[in-house]
Amino acid sequence: MFEVLARDPASAARTGRLATNHAEIETPCFMPVGTRGAVKGVAFDRLEAWDCRVVLANTYHLMARPGLALIERAGGLHAFMGWPRAILTDSGGFQVMSLASRRRITEEGVEFRAPEDGTKHFLTPERAMELQSGFGVDVAMALDVCPPFPAERPQIEESCRLTLAWAERSKKTYPGPGLLFGILQGGTHEDLRRRSAGPLLDLDFPGYAIGGVAVGETKSAIREITELSAALLPEDRPRYLMGVGTPADLLASVRCGVDLFDCVLPTRNGRMGHAYTAHGEIAIKHERFKEDLVPLDPACACPVCRRHSRAYLRNLFVLKDFSAPMLLSLHNVFFYLAWMRRIREAIAAGALASLAGPPEEKLPDGA
Amino acid sequence: MFEVLARDPASAARTGRLATNHAEIETPCFMPVGTRGAVKGVAFDRLEAWDCRVVLANTYHLMARPGLALIERAGGLHAFMGWPRAILTDSGGFQVMSLASRRRITEEGVEFRAPEDGTKHFLTPERAMELQSGFGVDVAMALDVCPPFPAERPQIEESCRLTLAWAERSKKTYPGPGLLFGILQGGTHEDLRRRSAGPLLDLDFPGYAIGGVAVGETKSAIREITELSAALLPEDRPRYLMGVGTPADLLASVRCGVDLFDCVLPTRNGRMGHAYTAHGEIAIKHERFKEDLVPLDPACACPVCRRHSRAYLRNLFVLKDFSAPMLLSLHNVFFYLAWMRRIREAIAAGALASLAGPPEEKLPDGA
Repeated sequence: MFEVLARDPASAARTGRLATNHAEIETPCFMPVGTRGAVKGVAFDRLEAWDCRVVLANTYHLMARPGLALIERAGGLHAFMGWPRAILTDSGGFQVMSLASRRRITEEGVEFRAPEDGTKHFLTPERAMELQSGFGVDVAMALDVCPPFPAERPQIEESCRLTLAWAERSKKTYPGPGLLFGILQGGTHEDLRRRSAGPLLDLDFPGYAIGGVAVGETKSAIREITELSAALLPEDRPRYLMGVGTPADLLASVRCGVDLFDCVLPTRNGRMGHAYTAHGEIAIKHERFKEDLVPLDPACACPVCRRHSRAYLRNLFVLKDFSAPMLLSLHNVFFYLAWMRRIREAIAAGALASLAGPPEEKLPDGA
Repeated sequence: MFEVLARDPASAARTGRLATNHAEIETPCFMPVGTRGAVKGVAFDRLEAWDCRVVLANTYHLMARPGLALIERAGGLHAFMGWPRAILTDSGGFQVMSLASRRRITEEGVEFRAPEDGTKHFLTPERAMELQSGFGVDVAMALDVCPPFPAERPQIEESCRLTLAWAERSKKTYPGPGLLFGILQGGTHEDLRRRSAGPLLDLDFPGYAIGGVAVGETKSAIREITELSAALLPEDRPRYLMGVGTPADLLASVRCGVDLFDCVLPTRNGRMGHAYTAHGEIAIKHERFKEDLVPLDPACACPVCRRHSRAYLRNLFVLKDFSAPMLLSLHNVFFYLAWMRRIREAIAAGALASLAGPPEEKLPDGA
């Protein structure tokens, strides 16, 4: 189901094709985040028109509202969302750790209260599989334990142990219809990552995710862990780096051999007035753009850059017009998808070494 | 520049074509409102794809921010907004009356402070013409005085007198490039409307608006004034009913001979969770839609109704997902445009008499 198509001679980067029930996904690939079944500000007809093949949805958010029963009655998550291409869901584990109040982790699973209404939930590997199977997603994730950052070593060791035990239970339970990916944990500890990889690979998942990254570490720690973890995962399986990152992060991670990404940055930052461009990040509300009549990114072919100037968008943003966060979200998601396409083309042409990413930093006056 | 194409045998309704610098407008026509140069939640590529030919923008909002100088430097309002088709601007008068604080009307014009930053402005007919001419819009409006509702008769008489004097000054000053429309005032007083019409028509505007309507009167008063006013305006000029209304209002007004409409309802109500359908208005947050897996309007061909159910949209709305108000705005604007197309087709086919509008009322449990 995963085929490597081309390799970069100068790095671990490769292009590939991941066959799923609803779409063939060309990798490296960025998955826009549709937390509650919608990519905030970007309607699905646009994503289809932009050749987006896969979006991510959050099991945690969907399990309580609208709940599995209604999604099943709608004919599955694709039908409920109105998205006919591939869907990957996380397992819910990460959000339980980061959002739920009064969570309690046991060998069996994790008990928590939803912050919205205080209702009690119990998420086990078996329940996470039941949910994602009922959703009918193309790629499901094993339930893992993502330790907070920073955490004491014993806590990370315990999260690795539980993650492996739950990976095994997930694998044993998941009946399809999608592919089930395992998740590698281990914090920033090289030896824990290495020790976890062996038993995880023994479970023979059709794909693997690098978890527990970008939860508060430094950029250089993220890069180190990504490089190490990607190298530990099998060459012939897709590698998915969860929750990362900026356009520059994506390029760096592709060079480590990562194939799949998801990140809220393009939509969340778009809503906050930050736009990604080939020359770095722009904070559109800044005074310097007040009379700037060029597009966000003059080389961008998105519907926003084709029509609107920075001055126009700034005016809408400053006046809190509802269209402003929508237009920046449109641009950012388009920019990410186009950036990944450019990376794929560079790899296929053997030219990745000379591809320079957008600078990490914001424009000098752009913050 | 305005040509009547077909007449309804049973009412004053007609279809027509209004030639402007940037588009041929087929009437009866609904103009989405782009207050600050953006139709809230609906990107312009969609409006073009939906064959929308004209949008409205607000002189009052654009005059302070971003201001005429920047719009001129951008190459005019079309270039600044990124909208290549027709633009109609109001004169700014209505917003001065309804939004500005400490306004003072004199023979010369209206002085006011912008509520946003307290800056002092002085809007005269000459200034309103300078602004709209500099914007380069296709249809400009004369500066008028819209009396509040309710108002004493002497106040309405005075507003009629000033509106006529300012119409004359507007006409004398406006150098193009667009068409300048005059505005008929007179509150709910039949005799004042009649007495105003004569001198206004003597000024020989290429089109006329019915102003001072839908500012707080009852539905039946609105209908009466619309019918009366439309009949006072020349047959061979387009008639524009400002700020009206629901889909049912539009149909009723078309039957009075109205050709052009603008209204914030589809976007404003969309953002608040109200959707227009052929069967009436829906308040999507209502519990009754929790498991309703049919589209907002099963007969609607918009990108929202083609993909999403009421249950899906309700879930997003209840959870305040950013996509929810956007999706309902998309549907509502599409619905309005499609509704006007259906009205035009019915008139052209001589079948308007049998066209029933959506019910006025919200669905029984829908509020």
